[in-house]
Amino acid sequence: MATKKNYLRPIDFKHGRIDMTHGAGGRAAAQLIDELFATAFDNAFLRQGHDAALLPQPQGRLVMATDGHVISPLFFPGGDIGCLSVHGTVNDVAMSGAQPLYLAASFIIEEGYPLADLKRIVESMAAAARQAGVPIVTGDTKVVEKGKGDGVFISTTGIGVVPDGVLIDGRQARPGDAILLSGTLGEHGVAVMSLRESLEFETAIASDTAALHKLVQAMLAALPDPAALHVLRDPTRGGLATTLNEITRQSQVGMSLVEANIPVLAQVEAACELLGLDPLYVANEGKLVAICAPEVADTLLAAMRAHPLGRAAARIGTVLVDWLSGEQLPRIC
Amino acid sequence: MATKKNYLRPIDFKHGRIDMTHGAGGRAAAQLIDELFATAFDNAFLRQGHDAALLPQPQGRLVMATDGHVISPLFFPGGDIGCLSVHGTVNDVAMSGAQPLYLAASFIIEEGYPLADLKRIVESMAAAARQAGVPIVTGDTKVVEKGKGDGVFISTTGIGVVPDGVLIDGRQARPGDAILLSGTLGEHGVAVMSLRESLEFETAIASDTAALHKLVQAMLAALPDPAALHVLRDPTRGGLATTLNEITRQSQVGMSLVEANIPVLAQVEAACELLGLDPLYVANEGKLVAICAPEVADTLLAAMRAHPLGRAAARIGTVLVDWLSGEQLPRIC
Repeated sequence: MATKKNYLRPIDFKHGRIDMTHGAGGRAAAQLIDELFATAFDNAFLRQGHDAALLPQPQGRLVMATDGHVISPLFFPGGDIGCLSVHGTVNDVAMSGAQPLYLAASFIIEEGYPLADLKRIVESMAAAARQAGVPIVTGDTKVVEKGKGDGVFISTTGIGVVPDGVLIDGRQARPGDAILLSGTLGEHGVAVMSLRESLEFETAIASDTAALHKLVQAMLAALPDPAALHVLRDPTRGGLATTLNEITRQSQVGMSLVEANIPVLAQVEAACELLGLDPLYVANEGKLVAICAPEVADTLLAAMRAHPLGRAAARIGTVLVDWLSGEQLPRIC
Repeated sequence: MATKKNYLRPIDFKHGRIDMTHGAGGRAAAQLIDELFATAFDNAFLRQGHDAALLPQPQGRLVMATDGHVISPLFFPGGDIGCLSVHGTVNDVAMSGAQPLYLAASFIIEEGYPLADLKRIVESMAAAARQAGVPIVTGDTKVVEKGKGDGVFISTTGIGVVPDGVLIDGRQARPGDAILLSGTLGEHGVAVMSLRESLEFETAIASDTAALHKLVQAMLAALPDPAALHVLRDPTRGGLATTLNEITRQSQVGMSLVEANIPVLAQVEAACELLGLDPLYVANEGKLVAICAPEVADTLLAAMRAHPLGRAAARIGTVLVDWLSGEQLPRIC
């Protein structure tokens, strides 16, 4: 880095806490950026050291997505807000069929937050970005007074490029299309809620948080014509039911689902019963729904099952004409 | 919009308050997006109704910047968090010499926040984006429990394209370069701090919050060779002193400033004295520093003064060789 690192003493990442100076734009803020963020996220773009990153011209149509992460608790079985904030935005970009290229991260940290925990979060975020192959090229850090935040919030924005021929859009579902789901439902929501309710299950349920762009690329690569893949969506907040609901609204169609084909882990099923939840409405962070022309459904399903994040993929239903005028909820089972 | 708007009753923007359902991804969240965000920000990209916006291929090198806005109070003389969150990010993009193209906005709202105030903020943001000619193409809304936030936080991310031949970079300041400032210092910080301290001055001091990209374009247009403009930076948090400090560090140079040439309004000077502040360290939201080859300084200064946001532009100093080894603070006056 071009930066001179001549601070009086290194930051104490074992016992230290965030204070207001870490967000004030002065020397303490610069030191936190140097010793934590720039070190963990290190890449050539971030090393430019500007308020903005200068990037090469993208080759293709652009996609841009942003997502605020306010999850509580910040650490949960299977992940933490750091990796989640990478996966969530990478997935939002990937659901257009795009190749995610770059991420920007905006941190809002509460005064008094332990630096050791912040370091864990930032390092988890850095590892997720590296694993996904999508660098965090620019960022911002603000500190709010104690009691005006909740530990750490991370807003992550991603951009990517859509390959030629890809026409994925929530308005593209057509009667006769097949509805595919990449795996089991509800792990993320149940993992987080069990922790909040201090429930313990015989088998620990871990969040499914994962970056789905490579699964999407494997799916597109399996298709002779990528335009046969009509809709992709990751069923996060609100779960599968809400996601399908949105698609029926946007595409003006109905849907018929075969509930028996929707995969749910036995322990998630049990936990949902205990918590009074329906797995169809519980959040996922590593699953996708694909709606495609019926003639490519088997090809797509095979491609999904061949990928580690799509092993339990299933065909769960069919798109119908919209027979429900004036009624927003689709028949979800 | 393709969306069917068949909610039971419209949102009560006069008496209503944000509740947890507005961030839960279900019907209340969709309604808030339809009736507030999508209405105020309306543009073809947002109307796609996805988690991501599909955008045309940009023509040129890309720039990406993100900025979290946590200002308190949310409304202040001369602006509010809404317009500020547009100006701040547009300016971060513009300081690379880029033409800002698109914005993404991530809202983190505290439970109980009045919808009337949220509407004012969103409409101010929409007006600022329209005036800047930079659409908000995608967004996200999260709600945190009462006491876990501070009204509204907005993280705004912007992308833009850098014209060919533009080579603006904090590492480009060279000995002999002229240092130009686009106008008077300290209005934003003093406006906000006066409000916090409940100070009243004879003449109200308003924030200088403004989008600077058109000023930057006028400056670049005035130059026969845009590469003669070496550095641009907006002196926000930490003020002019901190900004110049960063540049000296990145470019490994020293600076000599003529303090008498640095314009500060008389009432800002007086307020700073009362508040115990140095205007050189106070935040600005509508000012820029330009460092350029000495032979184009007069041309650039004339172009700045011809623009409404650069009328009080002044040449405030010169870049020197770095004679301060081992000492981070430059001689700022």
